[in-house]
Order: sequence, then C-alpha cells, then structure tokens
Amino acid sequence: MLSPEDNDVLTRTGAGTPMGELFRRFWQPVLLSQELPERDGPPVRVKVLGEDLIAFRDTEGRVGLLDPVCPHRGANLFFGRNEECGIRCAYHGWKFDVEGRCVDLPTMPPESRFRDKVRAGAYPTREWGDLVWAYLGPDGSEPPLPEIEFAVLPPSHRFVSKKLQQCNWAQACEGAIDTAHFSFLHMPVWSARDGIEAAVSRSSVDEERTRWMRDDPRPQFYVVPHDVGFVAGAARKANGNDLYWRIAQYMLPNHALTPNAFPGENIHCQTWVPITDEQCWVFCASWNPDRSLTDAERTGFRAGRSVHAEVDAHWVPLRNRDNDYLIDRVDQKRRTFTGIQGVSEQDAMIQDSQGLIANRAREHLGPTDIAIIDFRKLILRAARELGAGTEPAAARNAAGYRVRGGSIVADAGLSFAETMVKRFGDSLGRVRV
Amino acid sequence: MLSPEDNDVLTRTGAGTPMGELFRRFWQPVLLSQELPERDGPPVRVKVLGEDLIAFRDTEGRVGLLDPVCPHRGANLFFGRNEECGIRCAYHGWKFDVEGRCVDLPTMPPESRFRDKVRAGAYPTREWGDLVWAYLGPDGSEPPLPEIEFAVLPPSHRFVSKKLQQCNWAQACEGAIDTAHFSFLHMPVWSARDGIEAAVSRSSVDEERTRWMRDDPRPQFYVVPHDVGFVAGAARKANGNDLYWRIAQYMLPNHALTPNAFPGENIHCQTWVPITDEQCWVFCASWNPDRSLTDAERTGFRAGRSVHAEVDAHWVPLRNRDNDYLIDRVDQKRRTFTGIQGVSEQDAMIQDSQGLIANRAREHLGPTDIAIIDFRKLILRAARELGAGTEPAAARNAAGYRVRGGSIVADAGLSFAETMVKRFGDSLGRVRV
Amino acid sequence: MLSPEDNDVLTRTGAGTPMGELFRRFWQPVLLSQELPERDGPPVRVKVLGEDLIAFRDTEGRVGLLDPVCPHRGANLFFGRNEECGIRCAYHGWKFDVEGRCVDLPTMPPESRFRDKVRAGAYPTREWGDLVWAYLGPDGSEPPLPEIEFAVLPPSHRFVSKKLQQCNWAQACEGAIDTAHFSFLHMPVWSARDGIEAAVSRSSVDEERTRWMRDDPRPQFYVVPHDVGFVAGAARKANGNDLYWRIAQYMLPNHALTPNAFPGENIHCQTWVPITDEQCWVFCASWNPDRSLTDAERTGFRAGRSVHAEVDAHWVPLRNRDNDYLIDRVDQKRRTFTGIQGVSEQDAMIQDSQGLIANRAREHLGPTDIAIIDFRKLILRAARELGAGTEPAAARNAAGYRVRGGSIVADAGLSFAETMVKRFGDSLGRVRV
Repeated sequence: MLSPEDNDVLTRTGAGTPMGELFRRFWQPVLLSQELPERDGPPVRVKVLGEDLIAFRDTEGRVGLLDPVCPHRGANLFFGRNEECGIRCAYHGWKFDVEGRCVDLPTMPPESRFRDKVRAGAYPTREWGDLVWAYLGPDGSEPPLPEIEFAVLPPSHRFVSKKLQQCNWAQACEGAIDTAHFSFLHMPVWSARDGIEAAVSRSSVDEERTRWMRDDPRPQFYVVPHDVGFVAGAARKANGNDLYWRIAQYMLPNHALTPNAFPGENIHCQTWVPITDEQCWVFCASWNPDRSLTDAERTGFRAGRSVHAEVDAHWVPLRNRDNDYLIDRVDQKRRTFTGIQGVSEQDAMIQDSQGLIANRAREHLGPTDIAIIDFRKLILRAARELGAGTEPAAARNAAGYRVRGGSIVADAGLSFAETMVKRFGDSLGRVRV
Repeated sequence: MLSPEDNDVLTRTGAGTPMGELFRRFWQPVLLSQELPERDGPPVRVKVLGEDLIAFRDTEGRVGLLDPVCPHRGANLFFGRNEECGIRCAYHGWKFDVEGRCVDLPTMPPESRFRDKVRAGAYPTREWGDLVWAYLGPDGSEPPLPEIEFAVLPPSHRFVSKKLQQCNWAQACEGAIDTAHFSFLHMPVWSARDGIEAAVSRSSVDEERTRWMRDDPRPQFYVVPHDVGFVAGAARKANGNDLYWRIAQYMLPNHALTPNAFPGENIHCQTWVPITDEQCWVFCASWNPDRSLTDAERTGFRAGRSVHAEVDAHWVPLRNRDNDYLIDRVDQKRRTFTGIQGVSEQDAMIQDSQGLIANRAREHLGPTDIAIIDFRKLILRAARELGAGTEPAAARNAAGYRVRGGSIVADAGLSFAETMVKRFGDSLGRVRV
Repeated sequence: MLSPEDNDVLTRTGAGTPMGELFRRFWQPVLLSQELPERDGPPVRVKVLGEDLIAFRDTEGRVGLLDPVCPHRGANLFFGRNEECGIRCAYHGWKFDVEGRCVDLPTMPPESRFRDKVRAGAYPTREWGDLVWAYLGPDGSEPPLPEIEFAVLPPSHRFVSKKLQQCNWAQACEGAIDTAHFSFLHMPVWSARDGIEAAVSRSSVDEERTRWMRDDPRPQFYVVPHDVGFVAGAARKANGNDLYWRIAQYMLPNHALTPNAFPGENIHCQTWVPITDEQCWVFCASWNPDRSLTDAERTGFRAGRSVHAEVDAHWVPLRNRDNDYLIDRVDQKRRTFTGIQGVSEQDAMIQDSQGLIANRAREHLGPTDIAIIDFRKLILRAARELGAGTEPAAARNAAGYRVRGGSIVADAGLSFAETMVKRFGDSLGRVRV
C-alpha cells in the first residue's frame, strides 16, 4: 500500500509535479511516425503529460511539435495550413517553423522586426524506431535517445503500434511488471467436474507453459536493479526439478519488456505515456533480434496479438472500458478466466478496473507483489531526487536501455543470476553491442 | 417551503448524512430477484445510496452484495468469476464468499493465515417479495423485513418491476403522497368550446371518477399518523351528498401505496431507492390480496400500466428526461393534460421537472399540500432523532407495514376515521393478520 | 492583450456581473419570431445570459418569457399547457399570463386572494424585425428598441436566421470587427509553383476584390466612435492610386455590420447573445434598403450564404466544433485557405479555436488589431461606468442604431471621413430618416 501523498506523486504527471518533471527528463514517444505520413500533410493534435500540442511534418520531413495557441490572437494552429517549411495560422497568416520560430508575419510591415520577438512554444522531436519522440524538459538539455533494442534494429525486424488505455499510467505499467497475474488473468478455464479442458493453446509447448502457470500461482520473485531500472524474475515449478522462469524488464520511467519470449521468440516492449492522469497511450513494439518479422506475424500484431490491441481508426481498442471489453460471461464460465478476448484487452480491463487512478491506500500486498513495490520505490525516489536537484542518470544512459526479457526453463539449483547468464549471457539481461 | 438546510437533510443520502443514516436503518430493495436469475451467473453492478457495489448469486442460491474493490490490488470484482460459492478476482484469483470472507488466496502459501485478516466489504441481503433487499446499516443490527402486503402474499398474487427515475428520491416520493395532482396531471382534456370530450377512460365508472377529480381540484386532506408512517385521505365532492375518497399510505422511509383501488381492485406500492441523490430506482409492486393476478394484468403491467413504466433492457423508461418523455403537443392540446403517455411517465415528468434536486425554498404551499408537509416533518424528525441517538422504531415494526390504501365513495356525514373503517375495517388501513 | 481581470469582465455575462448588467440594459434578441409560429402553441425553452426561461405565444399573439419554475411546487412550466391567455402548470393547474400574473389557482378556494401574492418571474418582450427581443434589466426601465435598419424596413426587404456558436460572445464579436482576417481566413489558395489559381469567385469583380485582399494583408485601420459604438474602416491598396475600403460598424453591446457591401448590395448584421459564457446564439439579418430580397437570395441565405450558416433543426451549424467543421485537408492544400466550407463556418472555426473563452493575456497585438482594442476599451468602460451608477446612453438612443457598413473603392487622397461621406453620405455611416 501507498500513502495518499505517495500515490499522488506516483500518478500525477502535469507540468510542475514531481513525476511530471521526472518524465520530462526523458524522451517520450508521442506519435507513430505513420501518423504523419507525408511532408506538408495535415497537422495532428497531440496531448501528452496534460499538454495540448500539435504535430506536423514539414517540407523537409522534420516533425514540429508546437503549442497550438497562435501568439497573435490565440487561434488554434491545428486549423492552420502546413506549407513550405512552416504552419501558417488560418486567422491572419502568421507562420511558424518546426522550432517555433516566426518565419512570416504578414500583418506587420516588411521592415518590422517584431517577428523576432514572437515565438510559438515548441518541443524538440526525433524519429526513432518508427516512433516520433519528444523532449518536454528544460531547454537545451536533451539527453540521447534510449537504445531500446527495437529502435536500433532495422525496420524489417520490428512492428510498432499504439493503443489508448483508459486509466492512469502507473497502474498499467505495474500490470506489466507484475507477472504473477498470468496464473489467472490470461488463463483458460478447466474443470474436472464439467469435463471441460479448454484448448486455448495450440501446441503442446504452450499447453505445458499454461499448466505450469496454472499450477503455481505463487511464483518466487527476484528483483535486481540495474542502471536504467531493474530486472524482475519470477520462478514457477515446472517439470521435475526444473523451474519455469518469466523475466520482465522495467526501464525508467515508463517502459517494460514482457517476460514470455523463449530463446528465438519475439520480444515485446510497452511504454505508457500519460495523456492526462486518467488515460494514457501505450506504445507497443515487437521485434526479433535475429531476423525480419514475417508477414504472418505483422498481420497477427495488426489483428491484436500479444501486446497489440485490436483498435479503431483513432487507436481506441475495440474492447474497452466503455463497452465492458465485450465481456462474454458464457465464455468466462466455460473457456477463459475473464471471458474477454485478447491478452492486451484482458490487461487493460483489469488495470482500468482499479479506477481511473488506482487508490493504493487500501491494498494488501504479499510476496508476489515485490516487483511492484520495488517499482514504486525506485521511481518515487527518482522523482524526489530530481526535486532535490539530482538529475536522473538513466535519462543519459542510452545504452543502458539495451536489455532483454524472456523465459527459460532451468534447473532449480541455479541462482537467478546464473539463470540470467544462461538465458541472456548476462546477469542483468544486457545485450552486448 | 423548506429552508436550504432542511432541504439538504431531506435529500442527501450518502453515508454519514442524517438521511443516509436513517435509510441505512431500514432494509432497502436493491434488485429484482430476476436480475440474478441463476446460481453462479454473472455478477451485476448495483449502486444505491451513493455506494458502488456488486451483487451475485452463489452456488447455493444466496445473494452476495459486496464492495467491488478487491482488497489485494483494487481490481474490480465485477469482472471476477462467480464460481463454487464465491467470486474470484480475475487479477490474481483471490476469492470471496457472499459474506465477504476470503475463501481462497492463491498468491499466499497454503499455510498462511493471512486470508483470515482480509475481507471484502459485504452487506446482508434477503429475498422478499421477488426483490433482493439489503441492509446497509451498522453491523449485526439487521431489523426484520417490512411486511408490505405484496411480499407476504403468494407470488401468484403479485407483480414487481423497477424503473429509473432521474431526480432525487424525496420529490418523487412526495408526488405519490400528493393526491391533489390527479385533478390535472393525469386528466383528459375537455373543452365545451371545441366540442371535444376526450374519451380516455373506457367505462362509465372511470368516467365518473374522472369527472369527480376534474370538478374538484381542491380535495379536503386528512393525515393521520401510525406506527410506520401515516395515512392520507383526500375527499372530493362526488354525486349528491357523497364524497369520493382517495386514500394513500406513506411508510418510512421511502414507500407509498397508491390511493386508487376500490374494493376488489389491485393495490400498488412504490419504493424510491436513491442511486445517487440525483437519481433513484423506483421498485413497483402490484397485487391483489384475494386472488392471483391474471395474465392480462401481468401483460398490462409489463407494458407500462399503472405505476409500472415501459422500460428498456436497463430499466430506463422509454419516455424519460432525456427525450422530454416524448411529449406530443398536439395530444396535449386535444386529448390529455400533458401530452405524455402513461401515468408513471406523467409522474416522472413532473417530478423530474422540479430539478435534479428540488429547491423547496421557493415554494408556496396551501391546504392541498398538507400531506407533503407532514411527510417532511415526519422524516426530518426521524433523521434528527437518529442523529441524537434514538433508533427509528418503525424499522423494527415489521407488521406495521401491513396497511392498505384505496378509494371509496361514502356519505359526507362520515368522519375520515369512520370512512376508513367502512373501507378497510380499520381506521388506519391496517390489515388483520 | 488584456489582464485576466479585464478578460473576466469582458466575457462574463451572468446576472450581477459587470458585463451581465450592461447587457441587461439593452433589448436582446432571444428567438426568431418563427420559433413561436402559432398562438397557444407549444412553449419553448430559452436560455440567455445564463438564465433558464420559457417562451410562449398566447391566445392574443403576445409572447411571454417566464421563469419556468412554478411558484407552487417548482414544477417546470415548459411542460405546462398553453391555453386561453396563459400557461397552466401540469402538476396542479396554477396558471400564469405573459406578464407572470397568476390568473388561476384551482387548488385554493375561489374566494382566496392568495393568487394576488403569487407571481411567476417574467421579462418584457417585443417583436421587432421578425425577432423576439427581451429586456432582462431592472423593472420598468425598458429602453426603446434599437432601430437597426433591418428592423424598420418592410419584412420583404429582410431575411433573419440564427445559429449556435460554441464559444464566448466577445471573441466572436471581435471576429466581425477585425476585418484584417479577410486576407487569409476566407481566401482561396494560389500557388505559382503548383500552377493552381483557385477559382472560388465567380465574377471578375469578385476576383479583383479577392486579389486586393490577398495582396495587402496589412490594411490601414481607422476607428471613429459614434453615439452607439464606432465605425471601423480598413483601407487596402487597390488598382492605381485607389484604396479598397471595407467599413464595419460596431454597436453596443453586441451588434456588428459586415464591411462587404458595395453600393446597392445587401447589408448584414450579426448579434451575439450569450447562452452561457461558453456558447452564444448568433442572430443574423440580411437586408436591402432599396428593394425586396429575391427568392434566390432567400434560398441562398437559407443554404448558408454570407453570415448565415447551414444549420440543423436546432439551429446548430452542420459544420461545427464537434466535427472540426468537416475540414477537408485536401481542399485546404489546393483550393481554400481553411479547407472549410462557408464564410460563416470559417469564422466560427477560427473564433471557437481561440478556446471556449479566449485567454487574451498571451496575445501580441499590432496595428491591424486596433479596432479590437477599441472595442474592448469601449465596452469595458461602459460596463465599469454602469457599475459606478452611469446608465449606458446608447441603450436609449434607438435612432443611433440606424447606421450602415460597406465597401468602396476611392482615391487615396480622400480622408476616411471624406470617404465615408462619399460612400454613405455621412462621415459615420448614419442613415437619414
């Protein structure tokens, strides 16, 4: 449990809040690059960390991220015209470039230098891993971009998407760090009594993993900090003397890697970017370090496989808070533990259900919750240290983000560190460059 | 009129408010039994008196009414799985029975007794008269169930329904106590000038009653208190030396019987249960003390006759605040006084129209409003006495709720008490057991 | 720019606010007469200046504008029956005439004089120029009606309409005073590079005006005060030594005439009446002083030409804030500066885009904004003078509203006053009676 004060610090990300300031020290994804497909194309609205912005791709292909309020009379630049390396306000034609400089001011005489005094608010942007990233922090202090593996691989090896989530960022992020919930939330239902053995899984390998998760709802957790966050391993009893390890990565401030991948399987990352404190965008990436993704894999991700959701044209999941995730109570009785289709949607349902902003004052935490406890400690400490003047070192440790998560079946005699080395070649899951 | 302070006491029913505490001393209907048709069926959301709850019927047929917030991490038990005498949280499998006891806690070792310390909030429930009733008051102080006549009769003799009303409970309840409004709100229109004699009524008996109500919009009111509320008689001039009496019953805190039934006719009860202070559920019951209801009567009630409304699948009246009750202004000009179809809908319209919470500070009350004045005095006194430590006696007087309301045509020479004895065999309308 | 305090005074119009009181000294249009087409027809809801009211046309054709709260028990008179020179409450039949007098009180004995003490709140109304005007100010101080030209002409010469605007009244009114925006907001797009010369205009005359506006986005402004507001002329370079003048009129507190009419062309007026401080009705009038409007002109206005918008049955523009005005980005790229259809809709878009209530603290104003600056000064001064006890003289100067706006091409050697005399026969645009 968390005090109401700590819960506020954890969940509030507006400008000037401790967590809001911490987020503003890190590059944040704000759009898929594909949302700005063409030069001089339509500007789009962006809302992140409580700030209303517009983005546009200029004639040179650069992405501008501006305060939409025209400095002249406050008309919204969203309705402006994106033309010749700048966006022109539709009211009186004032024009601004991607850095917010006023490049034309037709209501003033040509000799006037007034335009040198006028600027539109603008944030630096970069494109990285098919995403548009922005830096909303103090001027001139942009850190390097985080080298999360999907972003440094060739485009052929990755798939990215985004989806709306209708709750605070932190409880959604906690859901990814908490791998104990796999024993229930994503499980098929079985019942000796009814003679039903749900066959959600396709292969005997999947069936085996499912059985291990079902049969051990109390995984043993190990959390080891590293330069940009921590690695969290959860060990369940497998066959014989083996343990079935599921190992997640958490990276400051709002990234997590899923724990499912066995060697050779695809890896997945999710990043929760607050829109307001009551909803967030989840940027999702799937990749294979060793090969291009297949067309079938891409088709599956687009249809909502794995961390990706089945979304509408506005990136709103088809199964969402407003329609109770199309829960099917017959299905919940007979086939799956939730009656809700899709791993992503099951996660969203349970996380959303904790409230628009989860109240952590009434919780009763136990041994399977220690990764969550460590997450809160780590990020609250970072926010408070920043408030006291210490910048977060992780923000400048680009290479620190080159870590992997995944699964392995290993002898129970191995320590967590030994198991990590066996699985990843490194006790913290770091990828050798 | 009422002071703003008294109006607040009358209308606010959240936990800790004077009226909220009074309501919490009485069993309150919260669902139709038919809303939980099967054992181990889907849980349903319930909101009453401002509290968000879930209800489910367990394997043994018992109804649980729980705080939906799982004590573990706050996920909502509405999405849980109703299985083998308990509801299991979809996140990590914690399971609670109808009394809120934690009966399984799979994330803890089997030897752990932690689950003895963990409880879900739960309220006692009973099924009574085809309704699910709940007691939201202090632990262990459940009173007996109120013996309103429909609940003690065989199911064959009664019909129950519910409908949403989009205003505060108290003004809706007042509408049922105030029988003076029958001279206008539910009247057909007639006009010598236009030569229109609206023929809404079917029989000459109905026509006669309608004419009496039309011709005397100033009934003489008599209010006599009894153990659980009061009886309110309103006498209008009928033929010759006769009076046409319409006699309603009010029972603490939120029940009323309609005044229309002549001997042998069906009796109707309405109970206004606050959802929030700006909307309420109206639970409606119709019954015949002496015989089973006919199929035609049930069909009529289902279609919205009498106190019952024509509702959608969510118990929202088809004609409601959001669509101006489908008022037909031509109909209002030529046929009925409101242009709105249905007695229930006419009542809802006029009560809703007083505001989400009626402001009683601007009223101008007269002799035809004395039953309403007495209602306010009675319940405000009960709320204040409870605040001072005196529990409401009515809550424990189960048999006191066995009263009837109805109509009679009687000689003007008879007193109200004599008329009551003539109509019901008892001066207060009490039913002999 | 304006201080937050001044911005509040300018934009807040509820009862008791400085601007609200100023508005309440002037007759305000509240309905089109056609919204109350028949005697004894249905009452309609009216909300102006934050006040909820109902209007009805009685048996004699008079329009009542009443507080909808029945003085008896607070039921809403909107659901009442409009009959024989009064509206009768549907609850208990209390009846009120257009002046709010209680003319029937059936729940009281006929000899009671209680009804002399009971009144419904009522505001005086007049019909004038096919609009219903109301006076919401102090009792018994109604000024004369403003003699805006369309209202004093025969009905054949005018066309009136209304449209919802989804922002504060003041920024919308500013949009009409600011004629500098014609060089962008309503312009076609041209591009030497693409070889596109948009042909929005039909005639060579229109093309010439468009070219003058395009080529001179810095008109020279002249603002001259008069008895009821001011006249604002804006001069752009035309052919040779000529200037193209566009002359708007502003009349206290919320009327403006458009600057487009060359001699003989139709004149247009707009009046912004606050519903709340975040939306307003715009009453629009078009007229020709010298002749009846043609059927083609009326058809065009109905279809959304000029100041009139294409609206739905509730007077909501089809292209509005909620649907981004159906902006067509391809059209914006290739044909018009906004990609939005309709001059009225282009105005609404840019004004709405300043926010529900524009924040004037961040503006950067220049020489082309002086009419707006003068508007703010004038009306803020009037509001403050009223607060200090000085009634606005303009409110009683009915004839002062007989002014015209319009266009002229004149020699650059003429002063603004000389140009006004040349165009209107009067240096302030006053119409001789």
